[in-house]
Amino acid sequence: MKYRKHVFVCTNQKEAPKKCCGQEHGLELVEAFKNALKERKLQTEIRAQRAGCLDVCAFGPGMVVYPEGVFYGNVQLSDVEEIVESHLVNDVPVERLKLDF
Amino acid sequence: MKYRKHVFVCTNQKEAPKKCCGQEHGLELVEAFKNALKERKLQTEIRAQRAGCLDVCAFGPGMVVYPEGVFYGNVQLSDVEEIVESHLVNDVPVERLKLDF
Repeated sequence: MKYRKHVFVCTNQKEAPKKCCGQEHGLELVEAFKNALKERKLQTEIRAQRAGCLDVCAFGPGMVVYPEGVFYGNVQLSDVEEIVESHLVNDVPVERLKLDF
Repeated sequence: MKYRKHVFVCTNQKEAPKKCCGQEHGLELVEAFKNALKERKLQTEIRAQRAGCLDVCAFGPGMVVYPEGVFYGNVQLSDVEEIVESHLVNDVPVERLKLDF
């Protein structure tokens, strides 16, 4: 597998008043994940990137971590360190943000 | 897992003369995958969508299928039916398009 973990963050923007993850917030999340991974020199084995709509609009800002297919909802910038350290580095998903699918 | 298969197609556009997958081609691929899945009534269990750069620019147009993490390169519209039927439906990756990671 090219990446040990591959993180896709929704950066889709819908027109108001539709609920959506939002481009600006999504891009900030991607940047925060990239920085946190670079700080740990993990950017070649763990990739975080933007994606289109993940179809979890009502629970956004949303993202998914593969290969395990764990979706997270209502992800804020303040959650990035915990997701990186707990899930991406130590393989323990962050239960309080997990979406039940 | 929310999706049995989750297909991410690069729709990233870099400025010429940089080699890249290309937005227009990527969006055409996404559309073709969506249509092929709808025809089979599989769109709720198998999702195809756009994504940002997958870091396979030189081998583009590129895409990845999760949860197995199989990357494909030089994907053309004429390859969509084979990828859907062989890989997404019958779980047999299309060897001639696979990128070796």
